Amino acid sequence: MIVCEFSIVPLGAGESVSAYVARCQAIVGESGLPHQLTAMGTLIEGDWDAVLTVIRACHMAVRADNRRVSTLIRMDDRDAPPGRIEQKVRSVEEKLQRSISPRM
Amino acid sequence: MIVCEFSIVPLGAGESVSAYVARCQAIVGESGLPHQLTAMGTLIEGDWDAVLTVIRACHMAVRADNRRVSTLIRMDDRDAPPGRIEQKVRSVEEKLQRSISPRM
Amino acid sequence: MIVCEFSIVPLGAGESVSAYVARCQAIVGESGLPHQLTAMGTLIEGDWDAVLTVIRACHMAVRADNRRVSTLIRMDDRDAPPGRIEQKVRSVEEKLQRSISPRM
Amino acid sequence: MIVCEFSIVPLGAGESVSAYVARCQAIVGESGLPHQLTAMGTLIEGDWDAVLTVIRACHMAVRADNRRVSTLIRMDDRDAPPGRIEQKVRSVEEKLQRSISPRM
Repeated sequence: MIVCEFSIVPLGAGESVSAYVARCQAIVGESGLPHQLTAMGTLIEGDWDAVLTVIRACHMAVRADNRRVSTLIRMDDRDAPPGRIEQKVRSVEEKLQRSISPRM
Repeated sequence: MIVCEFSIVPLGAGESVSAYVARCQAIVGESGLPHQLTAMGTLIEGDWDAVLTVIRACHMAVRADNRRVSTLIRMDDRDAPPGRIEQKVRSVEEKLQRSISPRM
Repeated sequence: MIVCEFSIVPLGAGESVSAYVARCQAIVGESGLPHQLTAMGTLIEGDWDAVLTVIRACHMAVRADNRRVSTLIRMDDRDAPPGRIEQKVRSVEEKLQRSISPRM
Repeated sequence: MIVCEFSIVPLGAGESVSAYVARCQAIVGESGLPHQLTAMGTLIEGDWDAVLTVIRACHMAVRADNRRVSTLIRMDDRDAPPGRIEQKVRSVEEKLQRSISPRM
């Protein structure tokens, strides 16, 4: 199962790019894949083809309106059950909790 | 004001790295900077020196136990008031809401 | 035309990963796409599907031997003729040369 | 010794950013650190403070002219002798050569 973060930025579209992020977010929502929007990108979870199909559609939607687009994709692919967008954060928080309260 | 995402991964430490993420998370918490943990990294907000001081401390903490460490830092530096970790997401969600409900 | 940099790193495979980079490099070479190996990744040039087909094959080759793989992909997609891996560097060097020798 | 790749992109400065890359390249050259310009970023080698001092100067030079700047930094920090920008590529090429010519 792949957890993937991506960010798609048009160059030459001015300083604010949130309208393009919103357009991508709509595409991500329609995909039905688990997802989360953060201040620095969008997280989605699925297998390679599912995830890349969504990112390709987002990239092409932004590229259609812009002559230059910069796209970043980061993947964490691991033998693990689905639900990793939440589970990865929970796993760290549990370890953090134990180290703060060593006697509990 | 800089919103920064970072991720610090030891190579050769085995498949699970959440103990190291937890150690970094403790350092981030002590910094007092606004922050958020996601499945793919840690977001923090501040000026260059504040943000890099925290990331340096995290990198060195992981490096102390590992002969090889891979660190990624992404920054979005913009003339904008603080609180951007939440504000950037809100700005997209508002645009998304308007495009879904064009008559409201 | 997309210029793409990618980096594929197995976690838990030990400190040295150059054998996996070499395996990917062989796949890239067989693709026939323009490419360049650097100390931090592999550059390739092509359209979306050509580039992603190669990166998918590399990712899967590394993943086949490892339970966890971290993959980074950065794309610069622009209306521009092929040959951008060299042309982008040349364009900067020309500007640099002019700024060093302003009277020439 | 850290091998570092960085990329600094102004948003809202138009489609071409090579003038800013050239300005950064001049700063990198003055630093005296080993470096290499590629189509997707600049590689430099040094310890944390040396490398980040250079990247900070580059970021601030671009930021001085632009209200929004996106900066990416990737580090590979390893117990290894200097000269890694070339050595890392050489190490892969040697493994690739051996796998192509297994009897030599």
